[in-house]
Amino acid sequence: MGASMATIALSQAYPLGTIINERGHLEIGGCDLVEVAERHGTPAYVYAEDDMRARARAYVEAFAARTGDFEVIYASKALPITAAYSVMAEEGLSVDVASGGELYLALRGGVPPERIFMHGNNKARRELELAFEAQIGCLVLDSFGEIELAEELLAGSGRRQRVLIRVTPGIKPSTHSYIQTGQLDSKFGFGLEDGLAAEAVRRLRDSAVLDLVGVHAHIGSQIFELEPYVKTIQLIASFVGATGLDCRLLNVGGGLGIAYTGEDEPASIEEYVDVKVRAIREVFDPVPRILVEPGRSLVGNAGVTVYRIGTIKEIPGVRTYVAVDGGMSDNLRPMLYGARYDAAIANRPDAPVTRMTTIAGMHCESGDILIRDVELADPQVGDLLVTPATGAYGYAMANNYNGVPRPPVVFCREGKTRVVVRRETYEDLAAHDA
Amino acid sequence: MGASMATIALSQAYPLGTIINERGHLEIGGCDLVEVAERHGTPAYVYAEDDMRARARAYVEAFAARTGDFEVIYASKALPITAAYSVMAEEGLSVDVASGGELYLALRGGVPPERIFMHGNNKARRELELAFEAQIGCLVLDSFGEIELAEELLAGSGRRQRVLIRVTPGIKPSTHSYIQTGQLDSKFGFGLEDGLAAEAVRRLRDSAVLDLVGVHAHIGSQIFELEPYVKTIQLIASFVGATGLDCRLLNVGGGLGIAYTGEDEPASIEEYVDVKVRAIREVFDPVPRILVEPGRSLVGNAGVTVYRIGTIKEIPGVRTYVAVDGGMSDNLRPMLYGARYDAAIANRPDAPVTRMTTIAGMHCESGDILIRDVELADPQVGDLLVTPATGAYGYAMANNYNGVPRPPVVFCREGKTRVVVRRETYEDLAAHDA
Repeated sequence: MGASMATIALSQAYPLGTIINERGHLEIGGCDLVEVAERHGTPAYVYAEDDMRARARAYVEAFAARTGDFEVIYASKALPITAAYSVMAEEGLSVDVASGGELYLALRGGVPPERIFMHGNNKARRELELAFEAQIGCLVLDSFGEIELAEELLAGSGRRQRVLIRVTPGIKPSTHSYIQTGQLDSKFGFGLEDGLAAEAVRRLRDSAVLDLVGVHAHIGSQIFELEPYVKTIQLIASFVGATGLDCRLLNVGGGLGIAYTGEDEPASIEEYVDVKVRAIREVFDPVPRILVEPGRSLVGNAGVTVYRIGTIKEIPGVRTYVAVDGGMSDNLRPMLYGARYDAAIANRPDAPVTRMTTIAGMHCESGDILIRDVELADPQVGDLLVTPATGAYGYAMANNYNGVPRPPVVFCREGKTRVVVRRETYEDLAAHDA
Repeated sequence: MGASMATIALSQAYPLGTIINERGHLEIGGCDLVEVAERHGTPAYVYAEDDMRARARAYVEAFAARTGDFEVIYASKALPITAAYSVMAEEGLSVDVASGGELYLALRGGVPPERIFMHGNNKARRELELAFEAQIGCLVLDSFGEIELAEELLAGSGRRQRVLIRVTPGIKPSTHSYIQTGQLDSKFGFGLEDGLAAEAVRRLRDSAVLDLVGVHAHIGSQIFELEPYVKTIQLIASFVGATGLDCRLLNVGGGLGIAYTGEDEPASIEEYVDVKVRAIREVFDPVPRILVEPGRSLVGNAGVTVYRIGTIKEIPGVRTYVAVDGGMSDNLRPMLYGARYDAAIANRPDAPVTRMTTIAGMHCESGDILIRDVELADPQVGDLLVTPATGAYGYAMANNYNGVPRPPVVFCREGKTRVVVRRETYEDLAAHDA
């Protein structure tokens, strides 16, 4: 980061390399946000492409320093757009997809099929057919019904498919219940505690078409502690020992939290990788290939959202509402998870904060509040408001509520902008009218 | 309704006219849901067009029986699609829009511009320009900044614009906080308590281009009690008396709740209209034109969502997950508001329920649960699962999370289906790649 990184605006929630430039504006990926907003309009999702690349490399380097046998898999649901798939493929990452749609986009982004892992608690017949046609590298099996369906589809094709089984280890990390996935009471996978995982191993032992090569476990997202991963790995090792499964691939999921605000202190990528590698080495012999599936921690801090302030409503003695030209249609996370964000004025990020405000969206709904109680530097109508850490699950969950066109996705790198997804138009809202 | 209306499946959550037909299938708008699913795929939003029309007429008739001077306005954010605008315009309703996008769609649907009301806590300059170009009937002013902007845009144009002011009466009805809108601490409108509404009246008195013709107040959505409306009307009457405002139009908002499940017992449209008309007559002299803005209560029960069951996961002693081929991408309301829905098996709706289940979506997220703890009739993979009362805020809030294409909207009437919004394709997911 540049010289001004000590200011509140440049907490670690912002993309790597963000600075306040000589015009006093926020600059991301070498691009002045005021110019980006003038050129591409607001609201806009603006990414520092080099932030994503640096974090992808940080994962690869942290592993390479510790083991020769690993695979970093981009959990693409965080940002399933063609350009993001391309960036991750260029950085040598594999990709996980959670649907036929994500598979389509991954292939379109140039991800080699053999590097694709496919997830899903309810993969449709058509989705499995597409996966087999594309010859994806690995299918992560989630249910007995899926085993049967996959065997039926592959029967007589002469093809075999490498598979992992997804297990639920009975671990509940500290995160929002919507994104805890490791507990026994889960729609995902086969339980370790209830014996279903062991039964799946037995079921696959004689499969004519499915090659069970290992285990997958993902305990949840946006996790700050590292201890639950160690426990999960120990439980999987016991399971592997008890079943005699030849576990060549061990996919220990994702989950590394990011800094949404300056107050968040997630573990570093290096610490996260170190804990997982050490825990696996302690309990596995031979040591399997180690797979991780980061999503949010690859793209979350790379992106910010830039809005323009349109209305300021002061209710004397109660609250000052600062309304921007987006809201719940471009960032559902505040309403969905009670997620907390920071904000700053992009056209004077280093001005001292003067006013406690609530950032409201423009939607016809009271719940459409982006941030409750955030201090801003004398906000004015026409100012640009930036919320950092919207790179994951922002565009991915965007909708057209209130007939609002979805914002563009703009990648910035070395001072150049590249629109990778254009802004929707009003005409697009009716494009599928039949 | 038909002969089978006593069964649990045919609670008032289902569209008017829903029956169980001679094949033992659920039939909506005269269309067998099994056939609809075969022809149009799953998931799909399926509407009984005549239900929407009947409810629109119920509003009109309830008013016509009581007063000659009223206007029923479709609050289109509940379902802002071209076909819904056309239906409401054909039934003689006016329309409210909450954005430039909804304005575009309303005009496309054939709504006469003079019958359009425009809302929004943060209308953009471009949105106001479009509204003035279209010559909409009435602008609902929400802030002092908007008054200034509207006057600036109209200055010298020779045009005058009829306006209402939106007031927040300081009423908090019993509903989810996200959809309470009448309290003083609101991003919307001008407060009665804090004097801002009176100040807005003074501000508009000498406007050269804006004609203040009345007041708008909306206290919230999905409200079952009627008493808060009476209080709101009394507060507005005091305000009108105190300011000397010539209140020719009184828009008392929407808010009538619907039956999401068989246990909900909302007021009828007739009761709702009766209470509002009587309350206004009691305190206003002369009685203004009475405007209401129903949205959810016009389209919410008209629509159901039809899914196919893909996976059934029984966790012994814990829970049975029934996974369908949609989820949080087509119905956000369970996650966003903790909303409760019913479900039935569309291909045997009158079979006795046998099993307590949890309906999970297919998304890669634990929170993607459509219904927790609902009894179904021996659910099997391949069965069609129907959730009633998804007609409002279902398609309106749909997104492409996990790369899932949005379902089609199918209108059914007199046994004929009409696809009014087609299903998205995988190619559509990348259609705006630049």
